[in-house]
Amino acid sequence: MVSLTVKNLISIADLSTKEILTILDLAEKMESIIHGPKPSTLLAGKILASLFYEPSTRTRLSFESAMARLGGSTITVADISASSVAKGESLADTIRTVDNYADVIVLRHPQEGAAQWAAEVSKVPVVNAGDGAGRHPTQTLLDLSTIRKSQGRLENLNIAVLGDLRFGRTVHSLSYAITRFTKRLYCISPPGLELPDEIVMDLKEQGKEVIETTDLKGILPELDVLYATRIQKERFPTPADYEKVRGVFRIDKAMLEGVKSNLDILHPLPRVDEIAPEIDETPYARYFTQMFQGVLVRMAILSLLLEVNTK
Amino acid sequence: MVSLTVKNLISIADLSTKEILTILDLAEKMESIIHGPKPSTLLAGKILASLFYEPSTRTRLSFESAMARLGGSTITVADISASSVAKGESLADTIRTVDNYADVIVLRHPQEGAAQWAAEVSKVPVVNAGDGAGRHPTQTLLDLSTIRKSQGRLENLNIAVLGDLRFGRTVHSLSYAITRFTKRLYCISPPGLELPDEIVMDLKEQGKEVIETTDLKGILPELDVLYATRIQKERFPTPADYEKVRGVFRIDKAMLEGVKSNLDILHPLPRVDEIAPEIDETPYARYFTQMFQGVLVRMAILSLLLEVNTK
Amino acid sequence: MVSLTVKNLISIADLSTKEILTILDLAEKMESIIHGPKPSTLLAGKILASLFYEPSTRTRLSFESAMARLGGSTITVADISASSVAKGESLADTIRTVDNYADVIVLRHPQEGAAQWAAEVSKVPVVNAGDGAGRHPTQTLLDLSTIRKSQGRLENLNIAVLGDLRFGRTVHSLSYAITRFTKRLYCISPPGLELPDEIVMDLKEQGKEVIETTDLKGILPELDVLYATRIQKERFPTPADYEKVRGVFRIDKAMLEGVKSNLDILHPLPRVDEIAPEIDETPYARYFTQMFQGVLVRMAILSLLLEVNTK
Repeated sequence: MVSLTVKNLISIADLSTKEILTILDLAEKMESIIHGPKPSTLLAGKILASLFYEPSTRTRLSFESAMARLGGSTITVADISASSVAKGESLADTIRTVDNYADVIVLRHPQEGAAQWAAEVSKVPVVNAGDGAGRHPTQTLLDLSTIRKSQGRLENLNIAVLGDLRFGRTVHSLSYAITRFTKRLYCISPPGLELPDEIVMDLKEQGKEVIETTDLKGILPELDVLYATRIQKERFPTPADYEKVRGVFRIDKAMLEGVKSNLDILHPLPRVDEIAPEIDETPYARYFTQMFQGVLVRMAILSLLLEVNTK
Repeated sequence: MVSLTVKNLISIADLSTKEILTILDLAEKMESIIHGPKPSTLLAGKILASLFYEPSTRTRLSFESAMARLGGSTITVADISASSVAKGESLADTIRTVDNYADVIVLRHPQEGAAQWAAEVSKVPVVNAGDGAGRHPTQTLLDLSTIRKSQGRLENLNIAVLGDLRFGRTVHSLSYAITRFTKRLYCISPPGLELPDEIVMDLKEQGKEVIETTDLKGILPELDVLYATRIQKERFPTPADYEKVRGVFRIDKAMLEGVKSNLDILHPLPRVDEIAPEIDETPYARYFTQMFQGVLVRMAILSLLLEVNTK
Repeated sequence: MVSLTVKNLISIADLSTKEILTILDLAEKMESIIHGPKPSTLLAGKILASLFYEPSTRTRLSFESAMARLGGSTITVADISASSVAKGESLADTIRTVDNYADVIVLRHPQEGAAQWAAEVSKVPVVNAGDGAGRHPTQTLLDLSTIRKSQGRLENLNIAVLGDLRFGRTVHSLSYAITRFTKRLYCISPPGLELPDEIVMDLKEQGKEVIETTDLKGILPELDVLYATRIQKERFPTPADYEKVRGVFRIDKAMLEGVKSNLDILHPLPRVDEIAPEIDETPYARYFTQMFQGVLVRMAILSLLLEVNTK
C-alpha cells in the first residue's frame, strides 16, 4: 500500500519528488478503473465536501468526477458566498462544521493561505483547489502527469512556459515542480509579464537554467513541451498594448511549421485566444487530454489522503 | 439488447418511429426498477454531467433522478453562467473538457442549435435538454409516453394542443411527433398565437388534418387528449388583451361537463393560470403523472445512449 | 423494527416524547454505520430531494451527508429562487412535481407553514428544514441528542438558553422540547429580546419553572447546559445598544471560572461573536460535536420516514 507523509495537499512544495511520482504512478493505474468492466467501490461510503468560495466549474467537476469514479459521494457548495458566510461566519467555523459531514474537504478560496488555515482546524484531510494567488497543487500534478504520459518521461525535456508568467498561479507552481526533473526552463512572455524575479532566482540557486525571451517563434523548434496560459486583457495599460501582444503570442498552425514531432502543447484552460482552434485537431494538442489526466490525478490523491488500499 | 441508431439525442426528428417506440417500451419497463425490491446497478460507475446554461429545476432534477434510479452518479452545474463561461470560454471547449469527466452530457442552453454543436465535438453522448427556441426531445417523449400509458395507444386519438402554439417549443415538437401516430391535430389558440404556418404546412403535406379553432369549449367533447400550455402575458400588446384570452382558455370544472370519460389533460408545467387547481383531483388531470413518465423516459434514454444491457 | 406514527416531520410538537427518544436511540446506533468497516446500503436506490428556497449550507449539507452515509442519492436545488418559481409556479405544483423524482423531500422555505402545505400535497414524506419564523425540528432533535450524548441523560439538568430568545426560532422549539424532560428553564437575554410571553405561559401551565434573568455570570455556576444563540445587530435600535449587550453576553474563558466540570456549551451556529474562539479547545465546547449529532439524527429520521428496516 502506497501512502503520503502529508495529511493534506496544500502545496506542491510539501511533496517530496518521490511522493509526486507515487501520485503520478497511482494516477496511471486509475485509468483501468475508469475503463474497467466493474465500477470501483474503493471510496464507497466516503464523502467528499466540495467547498467553492469562488466558482470553478472545471476544477470542481473534475474532483467530483474522480470521487464518483471511485464509488464515493459528494456534497457540494458550488458558490458559498450566498450561504452562512453572508451571516459572518469564519472559514474556521465552516471547516469545523463541514468536517463532521465529510471524509475529505476540497477547498477553493479567493484568499492566499486559506487552505492552510483550513487544514489546521480540520479533522479530515483538506485539498487545496486553488487559494487566490497562492497554490493549486492538483493542477501542477495533472500538468506533470500529462507531460509524463505523453513524453514518456519528465527528465531531459525542453519545456517552455508561455503567456502571463507574472500573475499566472499555475505557471509558478509548475516552474518549481518541473525543474525538479529538468535542467532548463524557457520562459516566453510579453514585457512586463515576466516570471517574478523571486522565482527566477530560486530556480537559479537550485542550479537551473532559466532562459527568458519574447521570441516564441524562434524558440518553438527547440521544445518538447509548450505550456501556454491565458493573457488577460486587464493586465495591459491600453487595449492597443493588449492587441499587439495577442497577435505575437497566439499559436496557430503556421507557427508550428518546423516543430519537433513530439511537441506537446498544454494549457490549463479556459483559453480565450491564445491557441487557435485549428490546433485542436493536430497531434500537438494536449490540453483536452490534460483534463482527463486531472481526473486520474485527483482519483489518486483522494485515495491516498483517505488511505484506502489502492494496491 | 435494444439500441438506437443515433449516438446523441438532439431532436425527436432524428428518431425513427420504431426508435420512439423502443424508448417508450423501455421506459415502461423502468417502472419496475423504481418500485422493485432491489436498487438498480445498471449505470453504477457511470457519470452524467448535467450542464444547465439556464436554470430548469424540473428538467434537471428529472434527469438526475433517472440517473440515480439506475445507480449512476451526477456532476452538476445548475447555473453555468457564473463559471468559466464568464472568462470567455466557448461552449466547444467546455464540452471537450466535461466529456473527460462524464459518460453522458445533458445540456440545456439558451441558444438554438447548441446541443447539436456540442454533440459534434463531444466524445460522449449528448442529450438536448432544451436549446432555446429549438428542441427538447425528452419532453416530447415523455408526452407521448404519458398519452400511451393512459390511453393504451397513440393511434386513432383526438388530440388538441392548446395555448400559445406560436412560441411554445414543446408544442411544435409534439405536433410533429404525435401526428406520426394520429391523422388529425386540433389546434386551439388565441388569435396571433397560432401554430406557425410552416408546421401546419408540413403536417398537411404529410396528409394530416389540422383543425385550427379558438373554440375550446366547442371542441372539448371530441377530445381524448388536451395538451395545454402556458400563455405568457408578455406575448400580448396590452394587459387587457391578455386578460380577455386568459378567461377564455382557462380550464375549470364547469368547462369539463360533457367531456369523454377517458379525456387526459396534459401540461408541460409550470402552469400559471391555464388549469384551475380544482382540476388536479379529477380523473382527467395527467400533468403530474407526466412528471413521473419523464423520469422513466429519461432512464430509458440514458440506458440506451450508454448502451448498457437493459434486457 | 422501530417506526413513527407521523408520515412527515414538520414540527417537534407532532412527536410524542417516546418518538423523540426512538429517534435519539436510532441516531446513536447510526454512529457505528459511519465508523463501521462496510458502507451502508440501507437507503441504496432511494432519492432525497433537497429543496432550499433560501440557502442554508449547514442544514443542506448535513441532510445530504446523512443520505450519502446510508447509501442513498440526493438531487439538489441549493437556491430555488432562480428556477421555475421565477415563472410563477406555486409551491404545491413544485412539490407535486418533485415527489415524482424522489422518495423523500427536505424543504427549507422562508414562509411559516410552507412545510405543512408541502406535506399535504406530497405523496412522499416531507421533512421541514426550517420554515421562516416557524419550525426546524431536526435542529431541536440534534440539540437534544447532543445534550443526552454528553450528559448521559435529558432529565434533571439545569439548562439555560442565552441570547436573542425573542426571534430565535431554534430556542423556541428547544424550550418546549427540553422541558418535556427537565422541570426548569433558565432564560438569559438582553432586555427586549426575552422569550415570548406566550411560550413562557405555555411552559408555566405545564408546571415548569421559567427563570428569566440578564445575569449570565451569576447563573453560570448552576448550569449543566448553556445553549447560546446569535444576537443580531439588526435587532437593536442603535449600534451602541448592540455593543453594550455584546460585551455582557459574550462567553470567554474568564467567564467560565467556577462552572461545573460537566458544563456543555451548545450553539446552533453560525456564531459571530457570542463565544470567544478560545472556548473552542475547552472541554465545555460542544457546538462542533452538535454538527456531527446533526448527521446522526438526520440519518435516523430519513430511515424512519422511508420505513427501512434499521434493526
